Amino acid sequence: MLYEFRDLNNKNLPRRGKYLRYYLLGIIDAEACFNVSLKQLSTARFGWVIDPVFTVTQHKNNRIVLELLRRTLNCGRIIEKHGQKDLLVFVIDNRRQLREKLIPFLTKYKPIIKQKDFELFKTIVLKLEEKQHQSFEGFKQIIDLVFQMNLQGKQRRYSKRFVLKTARDRDPQRLYAEHPG
Amino acid sequence: MLYEFRDLNNKNLPRRGKYLRYYLLGIIDAEACFNVSLKQLSTARFGWVIDPVFTVTQHKNNRIVLELLRRTLNCGRIIEKHGQKDLLVFVIDNRRQLREKLIPFLTKYKPIIKQKDFELFKTIVLKLEEKQHQSFEGFKQIIDLVFQMNLQGKQRRYSKRFVLKTARDRDPQRLYAEHPG
Repeated sequence: MLYEFRDLNNKNLPRRGKYLRYYLLGIIDAEACFNVSLKQLSTARFGWVIDPVFTVTQHKNNRIVLELLRRTLNCGRIIEKHGQKDLLVFVIDNRRQLREKLIPFLTKYKPIIKQKDFELFKTIVLKLEEKQHQSFEGFKQIIDLVFQMNLQGKQRRYSKRFVLKTARDRDPQRLYAEHPG
Repeated sequence: MLYEFRDLNNKNLPRRGKYLRYYLLGIIDAEACFNVSLKQLSTARFGWVIDPVFTVTQHKNNRIVLELLRRTLNCGRIIEKHGQKDLLVFVIDNRRQLREKLIPFLTKYKPIIKQKDFELFKTIVLKLEEKQHQSFEGFKQIIDLVFQMNLQGKQRRYSKRFVLKTARDRDPQRLYAEHPG
């Protein structure tokens, strides 16, 4: 058993770190959710916060798998799922941790099922980290990517049209062009 | 890329067979269903068929993962899920293939989440393969195990009490004891 996981006391753990990481890739590919939510916030430059979050949900009986993810990725936290106390969620919502931990892991251990979801998620996180959302053109490009993401059956609260319209109304360059001086 | 999977034409496949097998273990641990169904059949010795089936379900867009499972386990088949044409199911329902292919694979590559489900499933399959269900005592032991299995939210059609009562009514030894000669 891998020394760093001895306290988990599970004789079924893979014996090598690399094997464990491929096992966890399978878990991620089957169960993970790459989500980018959009929230209205009047103090944000274009009135919207773009919020990438990575989650993996499991029954509380299988906490060990979330613990393996947390330790292997060396970030994130495990919380009770809101309103469903039998479920636990492993969450990474810190953008720097997404960039420095999750993205390199999944660039090396490549998803097969969630390949496209991950590529979009990665591009969005990297653009945000480069602050591309601070120009209207960059903001619009990111929103285009957000609306290409697979929502796994859920619906977005706001339409792309609404997001871009409300954002454009606040574009300082456009305001300047229309009301110079 | 692994030579035997070149035709699948996916650049994200793990480069080594062992890594692929641990990835597939993760998929199985997250998505597989170990099921043992009970069906009434008047010509069966105790009136019941005990039917172990292993399945993994995926959206048809992710057929590649089921194909990887089928080739790695070297058995089973991929079919459309009954009544849900967007879903595909990888199925192993042949008892000999379960014993000779699936069980050795999962004895080597050990599930963590589905550890208990697999152990019960394995014990049941091996008992059936040893024909232990042909005596009433063996049949009863297997039924006890079947009713310990996790049904993942579903309900069994028949109660354990009903299965054992109808089976006991047909036990030739009991019939002999009650009506000798």
